[in-house]
Amino acid sequence: MNIKDLAKILNVSPSTISKAFRNSYDISAETRERILAKAKELNFQPNAFASSLRTQKTKTIAVVLPEIANNFFTLVINGIEAVAQKQGYHVLIYITHEDAQKEKDFITSLQSGRVDGVLISLSQGTTDSSHLLELQEKGIPVVYFDRVLENIDAIKVTTNDFESGYAATEHLIQQGCKKIAHLLFHEHLSISEKRKMGYLQALSDYDYVMNPDLIITCTGNHNMDYKIIKELLSATALPDGIFSSIEKLAILSYEVCNDLDINIPEKIKIITFSNLETASLLNPSLTTMTQPAYEIGEKAATILFNLLTKKNPASKNDSFILKSSLIKRNSTSIN
Amino acid sequence: MNIKDLAKILNVSPSTISKAFRNSYDISAETRERILAKAKELNFQPNAFASSLRTQKTKTIAVVLPEIANNFFTLVINGIEAVAQKQGYHVLIYITHEDAQKEKDFITSLQSGRVDGVLISLSQGTTDSSHLLELQEKGIPVVYFDRVLENIDAIKVTTNDFESGYAATEHLIQQGCKKIAHLLFHEHLSISEKRKMGYLQALSDYDYVMNPDLIITCTGNHNMDYKIIKELLSATALPDGIFSSIEKLAILSYEVCNDLDINIPEKIKIITFSNLETASLLNPSLTTMTQPAYEIGEKAATILFNLLTKKNPASKNDSFILKSSLIKRNSTSIN
Repeated sequence: MNIKDLAKILNVSPSTISKAFRNSYDISAETRERILAKAKELNFQPNAFASSLRTQKTKTIAVVLPEIANNFFTLVINGIEAVAQKQGYHVLIYITHEDAQKEKDFITSLQSGRVDGVLISLSQGTTDSSHLLELQEKGIPVVYFDRVLENIDAIKVTTNDFESGYAATEHLIQQGCKKIAHLLFHEHLSISEKRKMGYLQALSDYDYVMNPDLIITCTGNHNMDYKIIKELLSATALPDGIFSSIEKLAILSYEVCNDLDINIPEKIKIITFSNLETASLLNPSLTTMTQPAYEIGEKAATILFNLLTKKNPASKNDSFILKSSLIKRNSTSIN
Repeated sequence: MNIKDLAKILNVSPSTISKAFRNSYDISAETRERILAKAKELNFQPNAFASSLRTQKTKTIAVVLPEIANNFFTLVINGIEAVAQKQGYHVLIYITHEDAQKEKDFITSLQSGRVDGVLISLSQGTTDSSHLLELQEKGIPVVYFDRVLENIDAIKVTTNDFESGYAATEHLIQQGCKKIAHLLFHEHLSISEKRKMGYLQALSDYDYVMNPDLIITCTGNHNMDYKIIKELLSATALPDGIFSSIEKLAILSYEVCNDLDINIPEKIKIITFSNLETASLLNPSLTTMTQPAYEIGEKAATILFNLLTKKNPASKNDSFILKSSLIKRNSTSIN
């Protein structure tokens, strides 16, 4: 017994049988029920759909992300969970710790059908996405958020990183900074690159000379990054502004300034991408470029559930860009 | 062919067959091997153990916890992941959002054998653990950490909450506080209760009169808790010390003090249970009772892997208690 045999028995086309097993909305609920009932009666299950059938029942989605010790990601997760809860879905979280191999292994393990869909923010090391394409080919939809690869066809939810990098740098310029350092992580992803491009464009537009020594690439290792920032802030010609692409690096900059007795904002002004809950309670309160993290989670999850239910699904190349907000606080104030 | 038939063929008791399939250490390795070899030869697999056999292959453990927007839990997860990584295991995280029903549903879904073992910190609402016992009966071991139920036989990793609650309160007393409020969440779990008992014992030992109006039970809802704390700090007779059982409630207290222009530590001193990364950078820096979160994760995961590998496994009633540390900072300093 194969799909063609069943199609003949039911007097429909083989593709209609396929659609019934995929729960496609291209056929009526009635037709689908009739096909599934007959298949059950004949104890028939098409192999190709066995795994995707299994996934229809997991009522579980996976969120794959680099880390969670980070308010951005915890807020994204809250946004995702709010949507999943309404759909009666469980959310499983998997942390890659920026390890491309772990990410790949885990995604591959999902092919066996443990989850119905995947939301992913890529690890720093990820340079290709073939494992994710394979997953999609098995009928498990994937939506990317925040950390994405530029050069692949995928549904992406990101923020306006170029404009935000520009606005953060412009803010420091307007607050009188003359020598603005930029802190970032090395990664293959577009997100840091876009923020840096925004920084460079703002410098250029305001006729600042770009100094490559002020673009500081950190490592992700706490102690090494502390040393790197300490070196920057121990130089005789101290920068008078820091635009950090990463919340952690701004926190480290605060620690270094504390330890070296450098007054913020008098000696140096600091702005960072951040969703830190305590930003307003820091000494001094921290000026942030804040991503709409909760909304990113909501948006990505909504898109995923639209793909799963095939109601108003996004196309495979759709890109959704949400806007970050500049929140001015004392770390960039003029004395 | 059933267990009894196989027992007859091998001339052992049916319970010995069961033990072999459960990898029990009550029988010798030799006997187990002999039984499993014969079962394989006869292509026999007892139904009841099919799922637990399957779980041997997932190379995945689940961590079930109430929330992750909390440095305590993110550090615990990092400790767990460090151990799991060495064992070549994936770690899946499931957030209950303090919802006992979600917790139960998810644990029940794990019975089908998606994971080999479970680490769990209970939600506030959880009052019974029958779903977890069922899971253990299916051969999936469970280790509890931090938020546990007192009255069940289980392997638990916790901290010395009574002593820490006592020490936090004693610290405020030694810093000159006369009227010490205690902030906590209502929950069925022992952890808050123990901290509160420590608070009450310290008051009693130092001949302070216990005032029930100073024990403030918050809700977990940000806006409501803000109002509750604002009311406390708007009273004519302001408390001069706050011992918070929960990091979030201390952050809210900072916000309320900011908004009401109440100077910390001059007017009021604050200490809280917390693993907040930015505690030392707050204005003023925040005195904390800090749980060894990373170590809790490491310990719980190590115990779980010992159960999975049956090397040096803990007994079903073992309790491991790690110690928290008092970290004195400016929020409790004497002017």
